[in-house]
Amino acid sequence: MSLQITFSRVYQFTCAHRLNSRDLSELENKKVYDKCNNLNGHGHDYKLEVTVQGDIDAKTGMIIPLEVFDQYVQNVLIKIDYKHLDNEVEYFKQHISSGEIIIQYLWQELAAQFPGEMLYHLKLWETNNNYFEFGNA
Amino acid sequence: MSLQITFSRVYQFTCAHRLNSRDLSELENKKVYDKCNNLNGHGHDYKLEVTVQGDIDAKTGMIIPLEVFDQYVQNVLIKIDYKHLDNEVEYFKQHISSGEIIIQYLWQELAAQFPGEMLYHLKLWETNNNYFEFGNA
Amino acid sequence: MSLQITFSRVYQFTCAHRLNSRDLSELENKKVYDKCNNLNGHGHDYKLEVTVQGDIDAKTGMIIPLEVFDQYVQNVLIKIDYKHLDNEVEYFKQHISSGEIIIQYLWQELAAQFPGEMLYHLKLWETNNNYFEFGNA
Amino acid sequence: MSLQITFSRVYQFTCAHRLNSRDLSELENKKVYDKCNNLNGHGHDYKLEVTVQGDIDAKTGMIIPLEVFDQYVQNVLIKIDYKHLDNEVEYFKQHISSGEIIIQYLWQELAAQFPGEMLYHLKLWETNNNYFEFGNA
Amino acid sequence: MSLQITFSRVYQFTCAHRLNSRDLSELENKKVYDKCNNLNGHGHDYKLEVTVQGDIDAKTGMIIPLEVFDQYVQNVLIKIDYKHLDNEVEYFKQHISSGEIIIQYLWQELAAQFPGEMLYHLKLWETNNNYFEFGNA
Amino acid sequence: MSLQITFSRVYQFTCAHRLNSRDLSELENKKVYDKCNNLNGHGHDYKLEVTVQGDIDAKTGMIIPLEVFDQYVQNVLIKIDYKHLDNEVEYFKQHISSGEIIIQYLWQELAAQFPGEMLYHLKLWETNNNYFEFGNA
Repeated sequence: MSLQITFSRVYQFTCAHRLNSRDLSELENKKVYDKCNNLNGHGHDYKLEVTVQGDIDAKTGMIIPLEVFDQYVQNVLIKIDYKHLDNEVEYFKQHISSGEIIIQYLWQELAAQFPGEMLYHLKLWETNNNYFEFGNA
Repeated sequence: MSLQITFSRVYQFTCAHRLNSRDLSELENKKVYDKCNNLNGHGHDYKLEVTVQGDIDAKTGMIIPLEVFDQYVQNVLIKIDYKHLDNEVEYFKQHISSGEIIIQYLWQELAAQFPGEMLYHLKLWETNNNYFEFGNA
Repeated sequence: MSLQITFSRVYQFTCAHRLNSRDLSELENKKVYDKCNNLNGHGHDYKLEVTVQGDIDAKTGMIIPLEVFDQYVQNVLIKIDYKHLDNEVEYFKQHISSGEIIIQYLWQELAAQFPGEMLYHLKLWETNNNYFEFGNA
Repeated sequence: MSLQITFSRVYQFTCAHRLNSRDLSELENKKVYDKCNNLNGHGHDYKLEVTVQGDIDAKTGMIIPLEVFDQYVQNVLIKIDYKHLDNEVEYFKQHISSGEIIIQYLWQELAAQFPGEMLYHLKLWETNNNYFEFGNA
Repeated sequence: MSLQITFSRVYQFTCAHRLNSRDLSELENKKVYDKCNNLNGHGHDYKLEVTVQGDIDAKTGMIIPLEVFDQYVQNVLIKIDYKHLDNEVEYFKQHISSGEIIIQYLWQELAAQFPGEMLYHLKLWETNNNYFEFGNA
Repeated sequence: MSLQITFSRVYQFTCAHRLNSRDLSELENKKVYDKCNNLNGHGHDYKLEVTVQGDIDAKTGMIIPLEVFDQYVQNVLIKIDYKHLDNEVEYFKQHISSGEIIIQYLWQELAAQFPGEMLYHLKLWETNNNYFEFGNA
């Protein structure tokens, strides 16, 4: 049995997006995505829980100072907050803005911010009833 | 002292919108609405609490059957749910889609559904930290 | 303009009940109450917010000590918590256990506990999406 | 390190039940289950979080379409929603309706709906302060 | 019937405090405030909902720009956030730091920030189960 | 694939504390802990989720009776609830009261209460936006 400690912080960001796949016909898009395929887009207040693991710094009693943690995350969220994902964010001009794809995009971006293997897990709430998780099992 | 009974139900709907006033310059729009002025829009998961008052039907013990209540509200929400307010909803082509205006639009639409003075109060959450109320004080 | 101070506490209680009116036919009961008319009952975790108003005691800085407040409310909730309302609580053998009736029963019971006009408002959540309010407008 | 993606949706259902074991004496039942042993039952608004894992469909960007997901879950919940578990649901005539047993019943039922090993994890909130988890560790 | 519109924003602040009245004996303090009388203090994450009313600016569609609203509130919260109320905030060296007194202190401070009669209502959550309201009835 | 069942309960406790490390200079303390370094302390309403695993008792259908579970946890929480951690709890006179350290302290204390390997996981919410997890991965 190995015990493990993690630390998590909760963030929010707000986007418009539209679910539409170029690999599906208009009818198929309508059928698969339903209301989320609406041409003019719709929006969500996403909630993101970012979890890190790591050794506890003996001097501070913390894995990472809050200010540093926040800076890493804000460096990423600034690219999508209050944006229309499909129209304004380069990555989503090529990729469907489903929750599954958004959380992997966020992982990739955040992993480039946090040192080493510190980034451990992401939980992305698309609505109050829907969430995606990505990271170490 | 007069005592009063009310009944409320909570609904959700999802929209994209953009805050932009034709009575303000580009610079003023930027300054007043900040991120909410973003050209391509952004989105919210709105939460709406609809409150009615009225006599209790002696036969049912209820002010109004749930099924009827839901029908009235859905008749209205279907016009805006998963839409881009400014681009797709006629009313918001002429009016700024601020929370203050949205809640008054909803009141007007819902008051036309519920009989007499039954509609009593609306509470519209734009985000988890922002809400608007309209109705009887 | 007169300003007013109130204090509220949140409680939970758990009941089984069945919505069924002796003034309606079997078919009408089915139609009005739908799933809530199910013969064997169903259940809810009710949430109750009890609000009082009154002068602030200069010695304590409080309207009423918490311990006293809790005692008043527990004196009432003990009669219904973890009970089947229609089968076990005398009042609901004669009255439909709709939210509208339950909140008026609670008001009556609580008003008998709190001194004078201290009891001010009740908010009863039947589910996370449904609530009733009773008290001073 | 292998990274993993999951998708979850939150559902609610409402039941009455009574905790009572035929392997315990009346006194023991009273002692172990306390208020939950009340003869006439009580009720809960259960909240269920259903988590799946699987490959992301390149055409849709999703693990599974929402509509399909919902259908699988509704096929199961319809058997217990707004029911008295012990009196109306066959399985609980033979098994105690504790959270531990309910979540395993739900797993069994849901695993028969979702294809292959797609069903990954369940989280069952019995009240706002109590939850059970079942699935892959 | 006169209809009214209000706008509210939710804030958080964090304090340590101790409930202790110089007008009560040590024993009475212990009895009235119970655990809250603990000599070394304890703490809360307070949540404050600030509500304003006013005319809607025809140019912006808003009662008040968010940035201005936030500034007014931050001007006040900076005086108490992450402080020990009784030891560090002048006002509470003379007044008991009960929720009833804190909310009146906040009203007084906020009313001096917002123009005219714009400040309408305050709701102060001391814990998840306790709240105070002050303002127009 | 091995399936696993766990049971969790949610508790709250309230403390004052101050983040300050004797291994850091006054300036470094200020920089690392920011507002949390405030000399007079501040406070939090902590939320603790305690998770156990174990065999289901065939007689009761439960891993552990609620009353026993609660007793184990209360035996621990009574040592810190409504206390100033750094001034009143022996352990935190020697250790920084960061979330990382508090959750490990709680694990140690709770592991001594629950039999065998029953204690499985802890989740400690310091604020609504911050949480720590400790236990089996």
